[in-house]
Amino acid sequence: MLYQPTSPTIKVRVANWAKNIKSSMLQEMLSVASKPGILSFALGLPAPELFPSSQMAQAATQVLSDDAQALQYGPPYRPLKAQIVAMMRQRGVDCREEQILITGGAQQGMNLLTRLLLNPGGQVVVEKLTYTGFHQILEQFQPGILTVPTDYNSGIDVESIEKLLRRGARPALIYVITDGHNPLGVSLSLDKRIRLVKLARQYCVPIIEDDAYGLLNYDNKHLPPLRALDEDFVFYIGSFSKILAPGLRVGWLIVPESLIPRLSIIKEATDINTSTFAHRVVSAYLAAGHLEGHLTALRREYRVRRDIMINALREHFPCSARWHEPTSGVFIWVELNEGVDTIMLLKTAVEEEQVAFIPGAALSVTPSRRYDNCIRLNFSNCAPEFIKEGIARLARVSEKCGRNISCHH
Amino acid sequence: MLYQPTSPTIKVRVANWAKNIKSSMLQEMLSVASKPGILSFALGLPAPELFPSSQMAQAATQVLSDDAQALQYGPPYRPLKAQIVAMMRQRGVDCREEQILITGGAQQGMNLLTRLLLNPGGQVVVEKLTYTGFHQILEQFQPGILTVPTDYNSGIDVESIEKLLRRGARPALIYVITDGHNPLGVSLSLDKRIRLVKLARQYCVPIIEDDAYGLLNYDNKHLPPLRALDEDFVFYIGSFSKILAPGLRVGWLIVPESLIPRLSIIKEATDINTSTFAHRVVSAYLAAGHLEGHLTALRREYRVRRDIMINALREHFPCSARWHEPTSGVFIWVELNEGVDTIMLLKTAVEEEQVAFIPGAALSVTPSRRYDNCIRLNFSNCAPEFIKEGIARLARVSEKCGRNISCHH
Repeated sequence: MLYQPTSPTIKVRVANWAKNIKSSMLQEMLSVASKPGILSFALGLPAPELFPSSQMAQAATQVLSDDAQALQYGPPYRPLKAQIVAMMRQRGVDCREEQILITGGAQQGMNLLTRLLLNPGGQVVVEKLTYTGFHQILEQFQPGILTVPTDYNSGIDVESIEKLLRRGARPALIYVITDGHNPLGVSLSLDKRIRLVKLARQYCVPIIEDDAYGLLNYDNKHLPPLRALDEDFVFYIGSFSKILAPGLRVGWLIVPESLIPRLSIIKEATDINTSTFAHRVVSAYLAAGHLEGHLTALRREYRVRRDIMINALREHFPCSARWHEPTSGVFIWVELNEGVDTIMLLKTAVEEEQVAFIPGAALSVTPSRRYDNCIRLNFSNCAPEFIKEGIARLARVSEKCGRNISCHH
Repeated sequence: MLYQPTSPTIKVRVANWAKNIKSSMLQEMLSVASKPGILSFALGLPAPELFPSSQMAQAATQVLSDDAQALQYGPPYRPLKAQIVAMMRQRGVDCREEQILITGGAQQGMNLLTRLLLNPGGQVVVEKLTYTGFHQILEQFQPGILTVPTDYNSGIDVESIEKLLRRGARPALIYVITDGHNPLGVSLSLDKRIRLVKLARQYCVPIIEDDAYGLLNYDNKHLPPLRALDEDFVFYIGSFSKILAPGLRVGWLIVPESLIPRLSIIKEATDINTSTFAHRVVSAYLAAGHLEGHLTALRREYRVRRDIMINALREHFPCSARWHEPTSGVFIWVELNEGVDTIMLLKTAVEEEQVAFIPGAALSVTPSRRYDNCIRLNFSNCAPEFIKEGIARLARVSEKCGRNISCHH
C-alpha cells in the first residue's frame, strides 16, 4: 500500500442527496427485532417452512443440466414472460408478453418506474402511511411529496387526490398498494378502484400499482387490480417474493408496450438485465405446475394465521385496541389507546417480553405524531402457536405501559 | 377493462432525461450479431462450455437442503464476504469484510457508486473509449463528461487527467479499467498506476476501479490493482461474472468502511439487497474449493484462444491491420487501414460471411469519427477452430471492402 489507511481527516465528496442518507428508523427497529430469541411480528416475511425448497432444487438442477445458456449472459427469458401472462389472467389482468419487463423483484420494479417517470424535484402522490421502500427510492429525487390519507376500510382517499389534481397538481405518479396494503392491511374498494383509474386517465397521471400481495387473498371476493381496469395509465408491479420466495429476486412490471424499450435500457444500466439463472429456475418451477397448489397452501395457512392473530387480539385486547381484518396480504394494523407511545412500547416489549413489531411512527412518510399509538403486526412468518403466545406477551407489556402512560421506566 | 387499450394520442409524461433514451448503437449491432448461424466476436461472453454447471447444481442443491434461510429475505451473506476477502488477497488487495458490499454484478456496483458520488450535472473523467455500460449509467445524470485519451500500450493518459485537475476540474469520480481494458485490451502500466493513485489523493477525487477482468491474467507478471495502492480514494469493483458465471449476478465493491452504510441503503432502495439464494450458491461453490482450479483452467484456455486469434490476425492481416496482445481480459482492439468504415464492414461481414464484431464508433463515449476504422474482437467465447475460421472470413470481407473503400454495395 502506497498510502496509509484512512485518516479520519480525509473526506470523499459524495452527491448532495447522499449526504443526508441515514439508516432509517425502520431499520433501527429491525435490528432490535432480529435479536435471537425474539418473537417477531416486525417484518413482512413469508413462512420459511412453506418454501418449496426441494422443488426449487429440482428446478435448479434441471436447468443447469438441460440448458447451456443457464449461466451465460442472455436476454430476459421469454418463456417466463408467457408464464406471467397466464398467471396474470388468473389475477383478472389481460396483458401481453410485449408489455412485460422482468425485474429483480418489486422494489427494483418501482425503482425503475420512478427513474423513468420522476424528474429531480418533481411531484408524487403517496399515502401518509405506505411502503417504506418507496420512500427510500424517492430520497434520491428530493421530490415534492403530496400525501393523502387512507381510510382503514376502503383504502386511499381518492377525493383528496382529485382535489390535488383539480387545484393544478401534476404529479409524475401516484403510488398505490391495491390489495393487502402495507402497513394498513386494507384492500381498495371497487368503487375507489374505478374512480382512481378514471382520475389517472382524466389528468394523464400514471398510477404505480404495487400488487405484491394481490395473489394472497383470503376471501372469495376478488376485486380486479387497477391494471384490469386500464392499461394506459396503470403501471403494474408484480413479484414472486411473497408467492414463491424472496431470495430468488424475480418480479415483473406490466406497462404500455411503448415504454418497454426505455425501461429495458434503464434496467440494463442498473444490472445488465441478465438474471439468466433465476429466470430459468422460476420458469422451470412454474412449468412443472407447482404454483397453483403452492398458492392454495399459502392462502390456507396464512388465513389460519390471520384468524389466530385476530382471535388473540380479541382475547387479549378486548377494549384497548382497534383493528380491521385484512382480506389480503400479511399485515394487521392495530391502534392502541391514545397516549401509548409504541416506540417506547417496542423497547419494553423487546427487553421484557422478547416480542417485536413495527411502531407506526416508523412507517409515516413525513414525521408525524399521528401514528404514535399504532403498530404493524405481521401474521405470515410466525407459526400459529407463537402467534398466540406473542400477542399474549404484547398484551402484558402494553397493559403495563398503558398504566404508566408514556412507558418510561 | 373500463377503457379501451392504448390510443396513439395518449402520452404518459416521462422524466426529462428519459425522453432521450434511445437504443444504443451497440445494442443495434448486438441484435445484428446475434442472428443464428453468425460466428460472433462481438460480445464479451465467457466460454459457456467452461461453466462449472454440475458443481453449481451441487451447490444449489446443498444450499436448498441445508439452509432454511436460503430462499428467505436476509442480509448479505457474511461468509461470502470472508471468502471475497481471501480471494482479494490473491489479487494483491488487503481488505476487510467491513469494507465489502456484495452487489448484483459489476454493472450494479458502478451504478451504486455513481449514485453515491455524482450530482446531476456534475463532472466525471472517463476515457474516450471505455465500457459502454458506464456511459449508460451516466445518462441519467446528464453530467459534464471530461474525456482523456488512452495509450494502447500503457493505458489511460494520466497526464491529461493531471492537466484537467490542475486547471481546476473537480470531477466526482474517475472511471478506470485497470486490467484487460474494455474495449482496448490494455493493462495500465505500473508507473501510471502509482501516478494515478497519487493524483486521486492529492485532489481528493475518488477513482472507480473496474476490475472485472483482473483475475483473468495470462502472463506471470501481475501488477497490483489500484486498490492495492490506496484504500481511501480507490473504490474497487469486482465480479463473479467473468470468473464464474454472469447468470448468477453476484459481484462486490470494496470501499472505505465509512461509506458502507450509505451504499447499503442505496442498494436497499434498488432491490432490497436480499439476493439470499445467489449469495449462498456462490459461497457453497467457493467453500467446496472449486474456484482455484476453475480459474487455472479459464486462464489456460483463454490464453490459447488469445494466441490463436493473434496468430490468425498475423496470418490474414499481415499489412492491413494493427493490434496489441492483451495480457488480461477478453478483448483485442484492431485498427484496420484508414478509410475502412467498420460500421459498413459489419453489415457486409454479417450478410456475406456470417461473422460479427463491434465497430469502434459504437464504443466511443462522444460521437467521433476517430475510431471508424477500428473493431473490438472477443476471443473468450468462440472455440479455437471457430476463431481461426472467423478471422479468415473477416479478412476476406475486409479485403473486399478495402478495395471498394467505403464498403457500399
